[in-house]
Amino acid sequence: MLNFKLIIKILGFLLVVEGFAILIACCIALLYQGPDSYPLFKSALICVVTGGLAILLTRNAKKAISKNDGFLIVSLVWVIFSLFGSLPYLISGSIPNLTDAFFETMSGFTTTGASVLNNVEGLPHGILFWRSMTQWLGGMGIIVLSLAILPVFGIGGMQLFAAEVPGPVADKLNPRISQTAKNLWAIYIVFTLTETILLWIGGMGFFDAINHSFTTMATGGYSTKQASVAYWDSPYIQYVITLFMFIAGANFTLSYSALTGKFERVYKDEEFKYYLLFAVGFTAVIFGGLVLTTELGFEHAFRDSLFQVVSIMTTTGYATADYMIWAPILTYVLFAVFFFGGCAGSTGGGIKIMRIVLLMKNSYYELRRLLHPNAVIPVRFNGRAVSEQIITNVLAFFMIYIIIFFFSSVLLTIIDPSLESAMGAVATSLGNIGPGLGNYGPAYTFFDLHPAGKWLMSFLMLLGRLELFTVLVLFAPAFWRK
Amino acid sequence: MLNFKLIIKILGFLLVVEGFAILIACCIALLYQGPDSYPLFKSALICVVTGGLAILLTRNAKKAISKNDGFLIVSLVWVIFSLFGSLPYLISGSIPNLTDAFFETMSGFTTTGASVLNNVEGLPHGILFWRSMTQWLGGMGIIVLSLAILPVFGIGGMQLFAAEVPGPVADKLNPRISQTAKNLWAIYIVFTLTETILLWIGGMGFFDAINHSFTTMATGGYSTKQASVAYWDSPYIQYVITLFMFIAGANFTLSYSALTGKFERVYKDEEFKYYLLFAVGFTAVIFGGLVLTTELGFEHAFRDSLFQVVSIMTTTGYATADYMIWAPILTYVLFAVFFFGGCAGSTGGGIKIMRIVLLMKNSYYELRRLLHPNAVIPVRFNGRAVSEQIITNVLAFFMIYIIIFFFSSVLLTIIDPSLESAMGAVATSLGNIGPGLGNYGPAYTFFDLHPAGKWLMSFLMLLGRLELFTVLVLFAPAFWRK
Repeated sequence: MLNFKLIIKILGFLLVVEGFAILIACCIALLYQGPDSYPLFKSALICVVTGGLAILLTRNAKKAISKNDGFLIVSLVWVIFSLFGSLPYLISGSIPNLTDAFFETMSGFTTTGASVLNNVEGLPHGILFWRSMTQWLGGMGIIVLSLAILPVFGIGGMQLFAAEVPGPVADKLNPRISQTAKNLWAIYIVFTLTETILLWIGGMGFFDAINHSFTTMATGGYSTKQASVAYWDSPYIQYVITLFMFIAGANFTLSYSALTGKFERVYKDEEFKYYLLFAVGFTAVIFGGLVLTTELGFEHAFRDSLFQVVSIMTTTGYATADYMIWAPILTYVLFAVFFFGGCAGSTGGGIKIMRIVLLMKNSYYELRRLLHPNAVIPVRFNGRAVSEQIITNVLAFFMIYIIIFFFSSVLLTIIDPSLESAMGAVATSLGNIGPGLGNYGPAYTFFDLHPAGKWLMSFLMLLGRLELFTVLVLFAPAFWRK
Repeated sequence: MLNFKLIIKILGFLLVVEGFAILIACCIALLYQGPDSYPLFKSALICVVTGGLAILLTRNAKKAISKNDGFLIVSLVWVIFSLFGSLPYLISGSIPNLTDAFFETMSGFTTTGASVLNNVEGLPHGILFWRSMTQWLGGMGIIVLSLAILPVFGIGGMQLFAAEVPGPVADKLNPRISQTAKNLWAIYIVFTLTETILLWIGGMGFFDAINHSFTTMATGGYSTKQASVAYWDSPYIQYVITLFMFIAGANFTLSYSALTGKFERVYKDEEFKYYLLFAVGFTAVIFGGLVLTTELGFEHAFRDSLFQVVSIMTTTGYATADYMIWAPILTYVLFAVFFFGGCAGSTGGGIKIMRIVLLMKNSYYELRRLLHPNAVIPVRFNGRAVSEQIITNVLAFFMIYIIIFFFSSVLLTIIDPSLESAMGAVATSLGNIGPGLGNYGPAYTFFDLHPAGKWLMSFLMLLGRLELFTVLVLFAPAFWRK
């Protein structure tokens, strides 16, 4: 039996938190004396009052929380955050209709970075800051939800990672989950501030620098400029952002190890090794292709390929080049990167490197099993055997991911007859990346997509961010039984 | 250690068999007094002599055969059959270059049905008959190889099906595998003759009727007409072919049960139930779409949708309509059917219904496992629990299939910049279907594809026909070790 009272109470509590977050954006608006200070204040008030009412009305809720309550809370939080997070756009008139505002906010919280805005520079500072903040909160959210909330309910992908897969996992780093969450928060803030300063030194304005640091560390990809990072034609700025995208896409507990001097953990980590390998490999292929097919100089070709590969692989989604005008094979090689994603325990989305590696290994092991049918050959990761149960789960994840990708793409061709555009839009939404292919390539926005398509994309962003199962389980009849 | 002498001996023996098969086509050529009788005779002679020499030179081969020998033999047989099977095209000049002739023959033996011919009607009777016969032998080949050869070596997809998955499997039908193979041969011939007679009655010429029966029962799809089955504007002929495509895509042991009066086996078979369900479901969707978006009458729209769905799902590949001119969503819904395939134990290729059903069930069960983490919930099929090992194998199969599909499509964009055309070509080759999308849609052929693309497609056809693992295992270093 679901404990609806408690669910409402927790959601109310979280809504109050969102209200305070909007208040911070309101302070920025006041600082710049923008027209958006009152709309932001009003939005914050609505959140706090609604959340407060929810808490008041559910005072006598039973404290008992089940695993199923957890699934429902986690899924609902993201929807409610996106709904109430749209208020600043709606009330200020920056994005006047609900579909677009919800899309932009869901894209923010899920750190996708796909946008409906065709004139980002025209937005007031407070709204821009809120937009970047949705990503920063969403990026942190994956840590908080995975490490702080989910283990309480005994569920979630992070638990899979932490409890089952060997390596420098969070709860080994520190047995108390709240302390771990605090440590990760601390790293997140340190990295964000460091990047801000480095970008500021490089000549980026302070406001742009903090916004980009927010959206880099969250692997979000929202920019304060319509041209994205391409606006700054500075190799320094682009390399700094590349570095921090790469950090944000790596396991945060590994960064913690590195920052506390335990470098051998980083060297020994198998997921990190493959993460680096994939980034280098794809960059090399595209770099070679760009040198052969364009007039770009070596450094520029290298920077463009590295930036685009890291941006897509970490699921950030910034752009410094329009990959749709590359030779088709290079575009599609980059499209393959859409299906990789960051490391487990990072702010990145997608299928994730650990799953990709487990899938690759299991495929190879399946062949070895064929050669030695009587031998027990478990897949090994970080030197330890991975249980059959995790392999089945990862395989099922991949399969459901691909099925959703394929069927959503076909469905989208009702609205947009180009299969390529549809596949790009779906892959970028599901992978929480940002730009897609064709009509939704880096040179375009999602403004022209039919409203039905925007709602579908919003749903896919949520599915991708919560790693499918948490949301899909709500659609299983067994979930609602008894 | 691989027993190369025995491998060569067995291949030599099979090559002699192929020579005799070409002789049959030669007889047809003589009957029609065509210019192709001598080229066919020469081709047959080359096969018999080469095969005979191979047998003579390996007289002292040890009889011991290992599982690995089996993998190598099965993979090589298809390559050698396709190489020597190209001789009639090459010697007669019907297809003057090796790339095209090999593509056409591999497409034949694997029952793909993708063609490089732009003027099928211009070919002499003997060559046309050989072309249809490659499919008939290849279609039978899957039974022979799976039921007669593979179980001897203790390997293969059919073994997986027969030994592990419950239901009316071959070796329960009859414990002696050679007897089973004979029974299946008998059904195959009975169905082929029945279809020939029914088509002949319907007004199709006898030569066309026997050729189409060959390629229907093999789920091959080669036609003696450039316009494929659309050439006969007769509902009767199209419905008859639809029926036999459906039979060919169903499990042959089930057909045996039905023919011997055990109908309850058919009703109870879960794979057959889903096979029917998918065919009906996809037909209904496309029928509805055609009624809404075209001027076709009800019967015509129904016939077109049913024919195309059954043709693609069974991986036959005949066409009575150009689905590329349908509304894009309908084209792509049909493209989804590219990834289904026939039943296990049929002549159809693709992923196969049983795997699709097991994947669907496992995905749903994965959600149930999430809700009840301590319960052991095995996937059930035909009322029995399916072992974890089979599930992992099926999941790995799906994953490798999709990875090969995706990366081959990207690779093909070097040659053909249209991702849609590339995906269509790869999906149709890997699934042994026939027509693809875009430049390789049902209105076109593979004639214009770059030779490198034709070799890649030929390889994919082989991979698909042998259900990936048998071929891929040859690429595992462990296979060649010791």
